[in-house]
Amino acid sequence: MSPAIAASNGLPVSRNEEGPSRFLLPSDYGDFQTNRLNHTPPLPSILKNPFQVVDGHPTTAAGNPNEIANLFPNLYGQPSVSLVPGQSEVKGQSLKVGVVFSGGQAPGGHNVITGIFDYLQERARGSTLYGFKGGPAGIMSCKYVKLTADLIYPYRNQGGFHMICSSRDKIETPEQLKQAEETVKKLDLDGLVIIGGDDSNTNACLLAEYFRSKNMKTQVIGCPKTIDGDLKCKDVPISFGFDTACKIYSEMIGNVMVDARSTGKYYHFIRLMGRAASHITLECALQTHPNIAIIGEEVAAKKLTMKNVTNYIADIICKRMELGFNYGVIILPEGLIDFIPEVKQLIAELNEILAHDVVDEAGMWKRKLRSHSHDLFEFLPQSIQEQLLLERDPHGNVQVAKIETEKMLIQMVEAELDQRKQKGAYKGQFQGKPHFFGYEGRCGFPTNFDANYCNALGYATGILLHSGKTGLISSVGNLTAPVDEWTVGGTALTSLMDVERRHGKFKPVIKKALVDLEGAPMLKFASLRDDWALKNRYLSSGPIQFVGPYANDINYTLMLELGAQFHF
Amino acid sequence: MSPAIAASNGLPVSRNEEGPSRFLLPSDYGDFQTNRLNHTPPLPSILKNPFQVVDGHPTTAAGNPNEIANLFPNLYGQPSVSLVPGQSEVKGQSLKVGVVFSGGQAPGGHNVITGIFDYLQERARGSTLYGFKGGPAGIMSCKYVKLTADLIYPYRNQGGFHMICSSRDKIETPEQLKQAEETVKKLDLDGLVIIGGDDSNTNACLLAEYFRSKNMKTQVIGCPKTIDGDLKCKDVPISFGFDTACKIYSEMIGNVMVDARSTGKYYHFIRLMGRAASHITLECALQTHPNIAIIGEEVAAKKLTMKNVTNYIADIICKRMELGFNYGVIILPEGLIDFIPEVKQLIAELNEILAHDVVDEAGMWKRKLRSHSHDLFEFLPQSIQEQLLLERDPHGNVQVAKIETEKMLIQMVEAELDQRKQKGAYKGQFQGKPHFFGYEGRCGFPTNFDANYCNALGYATGILLHSGKTGLISSVGNLTAPVDEWTVGGTALTSLMDVERRHGKFKPVIKKALVDLEGAPMLKFASLRDDWALKNRYLSSGPIQFVGPYANDINYTLMLELGAQFHF
Repeated sequence: MSPAIAASNGLPVSRNEEGPSRFLLPSDYGDFQTNRLNHTPPLPSILKNPFQVVDGHPTTAAGNPNEIANLFPNLYGQPSVSLVPGQSEVKGQSLKVGVVFSGGQAPGGHNVITGIFDYLQERARGSTLYGFKGGPAGIMSCKYVKLTADLIYPYRNQGGFHMICSSRDKIETPEQLKQAEETVKKLDLDGLVIIGGDDSNTNACLLAEYFRSKNMKTQVIGCPKTIDGDLKCKDVPISFGFDTACKIYSEMIGNVMVDARSTGKYYHFIRLMGRAASHITLECALQTHPNIAIIGEEVAAKKLTMKNVTNYIADIICKRMELGFNYGVIILPEGLIDFIPEVKQLIAELNEILAHDVVDEAGMWKRKLRSHSHDLFEFLPQSIQEQLLLERDPHGNVQVAKIETEKMLIQMVEAELDQRKQKGAYKGQFQGKPHFFGYEGRCGFPTNFDANYCNALGYATGILLHSGKTGLISSVGNLTAPVDEWTVGGTALTSLMDVERRHGKFKPVIKKALVDLEGAPMLKFASLRDDWALKNRYLSSGPIQFVGPYANDINYTLMLELGAQFHF
Repeated sequence: MSPAIAASNGLPVSRNEEGPSRFLLPSDYGDFQTNRLNHTPPLPSILKNPFQVVDGHPTTAAGNPNEIANLFPNLYGQPSVSLVPGQSEVKGQSLKVGVVFSGGQAPGGHNVITGIFDYLQERARGSTLYGFKGGPAGIMSCKYVKLTADLIYPYRNQGGFHMICSSRDKIETPEQLKQAEETVKKLDLDGLVIIGGDDSNTNACLLAEYFRSKNMKTQVIGCPKTIDGDLKCKDVPISFGFDTACKIYSEMIGNVMVDARSTGKYYHFIRLMGRAASHITLECALQTHPNIAIIGEEVAAKKLTMKNVTNYIADIICKRMELGFNYGVIILPEGLIDFIPEVKQLIAELNEILAHDVVDEAGMWKRKLRSHSHDLFEFLPQSIQEQLLLERDPHGNVQVAKIETEKMLIQMVEAELDQRKQKGAYKGQFQGKPHFFGYEGRCGFPTNFDANYCNALGYATGILLHSGKTGLISSVGNLTAPVDEWTVGGTALTSLMDVERRHGKFKPVIKKALVDLEGAPMLKFASLRDDWALKNRYLSSGPIQFVGPYANDINYTLMLELGAQFHF
């Protein structure tokens, strides 16, 4: 334990203390932050009255149940649970609980921690909550801080994960599991809460299984976090942070739309964070009605090529020109390139060639590319070619994430339109403006929805631990109803699992919930996009409001997936 | 007049009509936009009761009064005016008024127009308001639309300029002045309102002088618009749009700060729109407390070099590393490069060389650079060198605005830190993340301040025209007080003027109000920045709120410049 952490253990730290471990104080804040501090998220009524934790039916797995049963012999088949009104059988015994953030930030994370804390204070007096610092690595190295009411207060309803920070480490190998075992034993933990995405919750399940297999008392509960929105299932309708991130991006997109319409001469290409899934792009499309939204999952399903995507955009630009519109807004997911089969193939070949050959200036190396990959490479703009050849990670692999897809598309559309112009098929002046909306969205103040949802998730986590459960992910449902009517429970993590075969072994995974092309959000979008393409149906949802008539609105994806009736 | 414009003249247009000239309808809107439509900006009490327009003392000019008197023989010396309670001498006669947006968008512009409209409706019944379409070009080509209550309603309190759009044309040459004359005569205009920045208001003054010199009845009134904040003086304390844009950028910066603190491994370099002036950067610094904010005016005054700026940043990064901080947030103005004398010199030399010589691969052309410029060129990262050589405008000039200064600084700081690392003077891992916040800020929903200020400016404009004034810019003052106590008047445009000598002639200009290094906002920043650099005093002001306790807060720049007492 570092001196800085020891010094801050359980004690409010003075403003004069420096260093990354300093906890924030209310006096560090401006008016707005202070105002949000004093917001008290409402609790579902089930949590305000006496309740019982009831087991459901035995569960199976999302796929390959036999393999999952083999991998999780102690957990497989255990029921999910739900809360119902009734006299609790849980004794008010105190608990020792550790909590950790795993992976990228998502708005609301701090409220999960304060939710756990508040539950323990109210229903398990004398409990202790430890925060592991710097993500899962903090568990392995036993870096932690004892969280007190004073320490956590300044993080209520605030964005970010900086109370205890996060990282992307995994606890997988026998040595790592052993380190985790030592830490939870040292701290005598009854429970460990892992707040993370699909990988982190898979990890939570592995840890739960490991502790159970060793007859240890430590229970492990997961919590669904990711702005990307790709961790969800029937019982876990949404991951926290998605609502806030989409609203922040939609505010910006709406503003850019007004600018496009006012200026009348730019096509804005906006790349949105969200990795491999296009949920954020789809939700932002539903909120703002862009002229074009590229959904990666559709590109993959239709096996589209770069040329197809370029032509799709160029066609709409040409039609809009005929209608007198020389401007527009196009949104696309960060991970678009990953969805295009031919690009994946090209990158695989480049990785192979660059590992063994020198890139000669005459371009002889290109002969090693397969014919289609060669054509694709030649089709790409020069700056992208250079990026593919030069920007490589320490393993020598092309860094796909570094490619600025929005700039690449602008260049390809420009080239295509130039060709059409020469043939007389396009008469406009195309000017593309690239944007990337990422970091500014994943650490905003959580919307009321995310603040309330995370608070309930935190409470649920406390309840699940208190009632002796392990290997569950906390689940809060009925989310389109008022908070009062939300349901609370826990879902067996093994029931979300499937296996993938890697290096000859079965590896458990929670399958990423990609955009369902037959799901209600996609069908709604598909039914409207042609209208949006040529007419301008832009909507500006404005900055997130915390009071007033729209402060409690929730995202369209959630409403549509849950079948809520509403005016669109 | 184009058919599309004729069709929309005065009539609400059905949703089915297509084309760029279609006016929006309330049914085009989402809930939030509709909610803002129904906001009624409060009026200063002086405008709610009977008032008189009172002349002040004769005025002079901001500089070179003799030249200004020569250039504006009919207007020079005329008094500014103010409103005082009393019985109006203005008859309720109706007016024909034209209005135009000039230059880039700024939040609140639509409220200036609705303010003029509402004034005319209430105090000059039977008046007609024409909107010139597509900026000053619309005046010269007589493209206009008659604005009606129904047409303008959907633009109340909304961002953007898309009601009638804008452009950057000027009305300067004798031919252009003649075209404007024909249009205002054709429409029988009593008044013309030009909503624009420093150049546009200079233009407004030239037009006022021209019309007066021809004994035409058309009066011209200007209105102070620009998010850049560089059009202001004692009587015109702020240009509209600045407040909103700064708050939108500050929301984003605050989010990125939380991300930086949570992740702990990135230095975010954020370039902010704002052209030649650093007001936006300074205001955002006061709102968010970044580790570093580069103020262009200071860079110019201290004659700093690129190397100085790079070292300044690298020094702070090294000191922060010793304190355990491997992250930070740095903000800089869009126009930074323009403030660095050596860069200006290099670009001038490059323009000269590239106009006459071929850039040979061996680099022989570089010998034509002066010694210092040569060194600077070699000091720049390769990608910037390429940008300087390749990206040129139709006149062959280097396009300074296209240089991504934030990326350039990241590369230069990276190179500097690499050198220090080799000498053992830096032990961290530097990772820079570039951002540009621009378009998303200049078309947001106007804050309550901008909505109210613009409404009052519009009203003032109507009053100035109604009382026979010309060559004034509408001015609303006492802005740190509640709206009820705001003052209203008009300032003689000639009193803001100076001359510049161009091509052997005197040219009138309203001097850009750059950041005053001895002004209260800069002094406040300068007194705090060392603390912000090493400690993390980040503030998150959150998304703009329209109701609730902070909905009417105004920016620090305005409060400090007006000497308001407040807790910082």
